[in-house]
Amino acid sequence: MNEVRIGIIGIGGMGSAHAENIDKGLVPQMRLTAVADIRPERLEWAKEKLTAGIKTYADGRAMIDSGECDAVLIATPHYFHPEFVIYALEHGLHAISEKPAGVYTKQVREMNRVAAKSDRVFAIMFNQRTNCVYRKLHEMIASGELGKMKRVNWIITDWYRTQSYYDAAGWKATWDGEGGGVLLNQCPHQLDLLQWLCGMPTKVRAFCHEAKWHDIEVEDDVTAYLEFENGATGVFVTTTGDAPGTNRLELTFEMGKIVCENGELIFDRLKENEREFCRTAKNGFAKPDMERIIVETDGKNEQHIGVLKAFADRIINGGPLIAEGTEGINGLTLSNAMFLSSWLDRTVDIPFDEDLFLDELNKRRKTSKKKEDKGIVFDTKGTY
Amino acid sequence: MNEVRIGIIGIGGMGSAHAENIDKGLVPQMRLTAVADIRPERLEWAKEKLTAGIKTYADGRAMIDSGECDAVLIATPHYFHPEFVIYALEHGLHAISEKPAGVYTKQVREMNRVAAKSDRVFAIMFNQRTNCVYRKLHEMIASGELGKMKRVNWIITDWYRTQSYYDAAGWKATWDGEGGGVLLNQCPHQLDLLQWLCGMPTKVRAFCHEAKWHDIEVEDDVTAYLEFENGATGVFVTTTGDAPGTNRLELTFEMGKIVCENGELIFDRLKENEREFCRTAKNGFAKPDMERIIVETDGKNEQHIGVLKAFADRIINGGPLIAEGTEGINGLTLSNAMFLSSWLDRTVDIPFDEDLFLDELNKRRKTSKKKEDKGIVFDTKGTY
Repeated sequence: MNEVRIGIIGIGGMGSAHAENIDKGLVPQMRLTAVADIRPERLEWAKEKLTAGIKTYADGRAMIDSGECDAVLIATPHYFHPEFVIYALEHGLHAISEKPAGVYTKQVREMNRVAAKSDRVFAIMFNQRTNCVYRKLHEMIASGELGKMKRVNWIITDWYRTQSYYDAAGWKATWDGEGGGVLLNQCPHQLDLLQWLCGMPTKVRAFCHEAKWHDIEVEDDVTAYLEFENGATGVFVTTTGDAPGTNRLELTFEMGKIVCENGELIFDRLKENEREFCRTAKNGFAKPDMERIIVETDGKNEQHIGVLKAFADRIINGGPLIAEGTEGINGLTLSNAMFLSSWLDRTVDIPFDEDLFLDELNKRRKTSKKKEDKGIVFDTKGTY
Repeated sequence: MNEVRIGIIGIGGMGSAHAENIDKGLVPQMRLTAVADIRPERLEWAKEKLTAGIKTYADGRAMIDSGECDAVLIATPHYFHPEFVIYALEHGLHAISEKPAGVYTKQVREMNRVAAKSDRVFAIMFNQRTNCVYRKLHEMIASGELGKMKRVNWIITDWYRTQSYYDAAGWKATWDGEGGGVLLNQCPHQLDLLQWLCGMPTKVRAFCHEAKWHDIEVEDDVTAYLEFENGATGVFVTTTGDAPGTNRLELTFEMGKIVCENGELIFDRLKENEREFCRTAKNGFAKPDMERIIVETDGKNEQHIGVLKAFADRIINGGPLIAEGTEGINGLTLSNAMFLSSWLDRTVDIPFDEDLFLDELNKRRKTSKKKEDKGIVFDTKGTY
């Protein structure tokens, strides 16, 4: 095989962006052969905008069964990610899911079980992992040169969305349609990066505010406090209501501090380990010597295209993925834990009670209100 | 009167710095006439280093009773601030207390009651209020031009202290001697500024970690989540264990965002109110237009000298203080609430149960261990 025939399930905002990218040939080892969507108007869009001959299906399963595709990209509302991944893998297709892996970890655990038994490739669209600054940071932390992590503080409030964003699609920002708000739609990237860089916290205390800035059911403002196994602590702040927002990740280690902001990594590197300095310095106000380094990166930031290239390369050549599909559960565990902590108004240990989470989610789904779907699809370019 | 004769009670680190400043004539309307300290070696220091003729007392009350002073500056361990302020005011002297106002609000409430009945001037050493960036910020917020506050995030982790700092003084970082750690010794400035700029929160959930980075009894690492009456939320992170630390105050308002860091105020000013924009914009991904402004200030930052000048001027001419002594209770209310929240492992409303706080504090004082006092006094210049 030297080309992956790919089909896309769900061609709304993100799915149609993927379709156009692949159709334009931006992923050389990949050819778009089919798209599926339950909305006839989206299939009309596909017939108008995409290369002639690309098949359209009203049902993702029919597309999987059609024999037209070697692999599927799933860009449906989040609740459907696991079931389509499972159906694809069980029917011999490779699968890549948009983030998040699903809405609740119990559902994703089942998906991961199927993936573990399958010989097909399973990937997830964590395109932010292709960003050179996060890759470099991951490399620096993994090398051990920074010593133990002491603190992480991520203010990721630059996910601004207007009311019209939420009004456009019927499924969005409802408990039953989307299953969450900023934690589930915008933040899966940062929650994945957080665990990829720092490891999983062991405790979460979160404060999720629903409908704080928008007329919606779900949370659009979150502050979470985290504790890690080694005693490190963290803060994660996000919202879709701040303009302008901030994307500032600060990490403190025994060997210094790194701030990641505006596409730059600024490393204040200590000349000696702070823990050792603290114990041995004679002056109470002394500080360890440091130097400021603007960390060089390779400058590459391929985003979605990079994730799709790696997915195709894995299928064809067995190369490395940007993110294994089974890793999607980690970031989702964080958002589920944040919800649960806020709903129960207490600190939640990780791993948490997944049945309890599902009960609490289902309570909210039951009273969830259907919104009118205005059928508006905004151009998502530059928004992720 | 055209000169205030001042005495200082407690000439350790801060008290001796004040003594030298005043003795050098840096506060023109003030003359140092006496100092008091229970430690004979500190009085020896005073005789050696200060102008001849300045009286020394082993007891602050004796100094107050001596008739040598019109006013006292109290720089004892925090527990004694209220009792000396009360004694001074009740004996006809003006008083200025170092921060914090005391260790627990109940004690400070009594001090404020006495101050309210007194015709003497009562001030508190909130020298950070003299900093041009905070003054400018206060002015901007008070003017109403920024609209309602939505979020505040203060990472104030640049209070680095080595173990030797804590080992130097017997009273420091013990429940019985000092009554707290970073919240009570280093952060009273920021807690005061926080309430001065943003108003008082109505709810606090804090995570105070004791002896996390140092061999001490009290907290040296704190993360607190705040909620304000108008729904705004906040995060306050502090420690004496991070090197290098951060001092970054970010405030989001309806009319934009202000970041205060490195002595600079950066204001991203929106062309229209975000709340209005959110409701009316047609594009889901649109953002309100903004311009970045480096806010000009008057550049003045008189710190302790400025506070003492204003104190003298109030006594002589009735001018404005930098901070009324009775305002000290606000920042202390915040730190007390943070302790209580952490001790009880739950969210605490403000106002909180002050008797409960005192019970919890007293439990800790009972098991507090006496440390050896090494009698070391570090030069505090540039550390506040």
